[in-house]
Amino acid sequence: EVSSIDSQSSHRLLSLPGLINIATFVPSLLSAGGSPDFEKVSEASLKAGFTITRILPTGVDGSITDALSLLTAQENTRGKSAVDFNLSIAATGDNASQLVKASPNVGSLVIPFNYFNNNLDKVATVSEHFNVWPTSKPIVTDASSTDLASILLLASLHNRPVHVTNVLKKADLALISMAKEKGLKVTCDVSIHALFLSQVEFPGCSHLPTKEDQEGLWEGLESIDIFAVGVLPSQLAKSLGLTVEAGVGIADALPLLLTAVRENKLTVEDIVLRLSTNPKKIFDLHDQSGTTVEVDLDRQTTVSSFYSKPLYGTVERVTYNDKTVVLEGKIVVSDFHLGKDVSGHSNAAQVVPASPLVKGGAVFAS
Amino acid sequence: EVSSIDSQSSHRLLSLPGLINIATFVPSLLSAGGSPDFEKVSEASLKAGFTITRILPTGVDGSITDALSLLTAQENTRGKSAVDFNLSIAATGDNASQLVKASPNVGSLVIPFNYFNNNLDKVATVSEHFNVWPTSKPIVTDASSTDLASILLLASLHNRPVHVTNVLKKADLALISMAKEKGLKVTCDVSIHALFLSQVEFPGCSHLPTKEDQEGLWEGLESIDIFAVGVLPSQLAKSLGLTVEAGVGIADALPLLLTAVRENKLTVEDIVLRLSTNPKKIFDLHDQSGTTVEVDLDRQTTVSSFYSKPLYGTVERVTYNDKTVVLEGKIVVSDFHLGKDVSGHSNAAQVVPASPLVKGGAVFAS
Ligand SMILES: [Zn+2]
Ligand SMILES: [Zn+2]
Ligand SMILES: [Zn+2]
Ligand SMILES: [Zn+2]
Ligand SMILES: [Zn+2]
Ligand SMILES: [Zn+2]
Ligand SMILES: [Zn+2]
Ligand SMILES: [Zn+2]
Repeated sequence: EVSSIDSQSSHRLLSLPGLINIATFVPSLLSAGGSPDFEKVSEASLKAGFTITRILPTGVDGSITDALSLLTAQENTRGKSAVDFNLSIAATGDNASQLVKASPNVGSLVIPFNYFNNNLDKVATVSEHFNVWPTSKPIVTDASSTDLASILLLASLHNRPVHVTNVLKKADLALISMAKEKGLKVTCDVSIHALFLSQVEFPGCSHLPTKEDQEGLWEGLESIDIFAVGVLPSQLAKSLGLTVEAGVGIADALPLLLTAVRENKLTVEDIVLRLSTNPKKIFDLHDQSGTTVEVDLDRQTTVSSFYSKPLYGTVERVTYNDKTVVLEGKIVVSDFHLGKDVSGHSNAAQVVPASPLVKGGAVFAS
Repeated sequence: EVSSIDSQSSHRLLSLPGLINIATFVPSLLSAGGSPDFEKVSEASLKAGFTITRILPTGVDGSITDALSLLTAQENTRGKSAVDFNLSIAATGDNASQLVKASPNVGSLVIPFNYFNNNLDKVATVSEHFNVWPTSKPIVTDASSTDLASILLLASLHNRPVHVTNVLKKADLALISMAKEKGLKVTCDVSIHALFLSQVEFPGCSHLPTKEDQEGLWEGLESIDIFAVGVLPSQLAKSLGLTVEAGVGIADALPLLLTAVRENKLTVEDIVLRLSTNPKKIFDLHDQSGTTVEVDLDRQTTVSSFYSKPLYGTVERVTYNDKTVVLEGKIVVSDFHLGKDVSGHSNAAQVVPASPLVKGGAVFAS
């Protein structure tokens, strides 16, 4: 697993494939006048070794939920990305027709249970989402507890895969694990910071797991398909009263995991599986040839972190499309806004599912 | 379907099998000093044509949740029933070991989602119930919305049948119907009064369906396995500020349905299927030979009801174990406390399911 040894210092050098962050938070994604946030996030991603980044559809200034907001997000991202990326669309109680229209131009549908109005009939709403969303594109949800059970039932009844993002509770992971055992097509990710920070270190931050839940996540590691950066570091910054900087949590994500490798809590294979192999498969992403990340496992990083212990695993070089673009934490090429919007990429044919609930194309009318 | 015609008046006379009320509410079920409520309910049941009655585990004075409360209920019912009956036990957050012990002496497990503490991890709790409850005995729940979806998922993952009681919402019935189509082992009942009374007639009584939900129940009739009396008439009486009399709603249950037959909204077969055939099958109840209910479909009843329109379908005779016990609304035998507690009845062998979560019999320790 370790690609070579630095002879002068006995440091272990790793060569990793380009990493994939499947849940990337951009605070100001939809601001009309444009915002530097997306650019900052994409540059932070490249320096940290993430060469594909899936942008979450919800920023602090709104969500991508229809053709208009998608257009705004496309304008705010076009020609500004240092890495390949895709956009997603968020489901609401009444945007089924918008979802269908937008689907060719987004990478996935996100069903944000935690943002649904309490009065919404969630089961009927989510059932409609399953009916209209093309089978060729993934469905992601943040559902927990009985909401999680609901969406797993609907996924099972509709025979559709579903990805559960930002799992925080031991019980949720146990349910996902049981569902996997019984053959349901469910996958999940855990926020990297949730594996290392808990409500013990940050009392009152409900976005972090309790210590018991965190232990449950480590015990259930085999059921965790993907590690992601996600929105959690931004939520933590906010709950600490800090300004939420675009890209917070991206730089220390890999060092957190590599420090765990040094402590024998993870293997490099665990990381590559969950930051490259599985993300590519589950989210149907493209291969990036000539793209690698070189890391010194034993070199302490200088990246800032919420974590008080020293972190190891410095990214020394990122090669992107056969070109060295990052050296020692600095972008070393002048033209680095070459990242493509790969939202339209799919290895499968795009099909809108036939459904008894979609009659006479009425659902396509807006 | 109509067994004979009363020649003097052209009234249609029906001979029905003994009816089964699968959800019978006894207000004072657990009072230590004994209470006349159970006796009243059983006599009202006999007069109304219900010759088997499944007692709900929750009264106004508590629930059957352990060996002690089961004993109290047994003492309050022994030798006092005019009809055959069984008792059930209610699940709580922490009575798994009690459930296992009590299971041979109750007819079913009721999982009352609507009574669970909000802080309870419902998914984990219900999963444990599924793990410990014998496969030979039915599981009943009142779950709605995402709770309903949760329990359907767990039933599916555990490959166990589940019966949903007192379905009130169109959306819940639609989910049950979809689950049935996909092969899940789910059955359900609707409260008879919910088919005829709505929040239009009784504004503010949230125990009744809205008019739209009520219409949805009628449209989904094919998905409704059982009609029950249930707790709804008692809830309605309470919300109207009336004293909740033991047995309220039992006398008018069959007349409500038979009046719908006269209006061509139901057939007699619809009723027999849902008050006898299906209840017997779903709840594994015994055959009652020599037990019939004779009804005059065209004779207006004098039973009281919340319903303002005249009701038809008078019970003229009940034959129980080959003996006429009820004539013209009156019990005509002196010794009529011959109903048996059939809680232990089962056509299947009783098996506690093997489960990876139940190790070394630890769950059996109290
Ligand atoms: Zn080094
Ligand atoms: Zn730039
Ligand atoms: Zn559907
Ligand atoms: Zn927080
Ligand atoms: Zn007559
Ligand atoms: Zn008596
Ligand atoms: Zn289980
Ligand atoms: Zn009420």
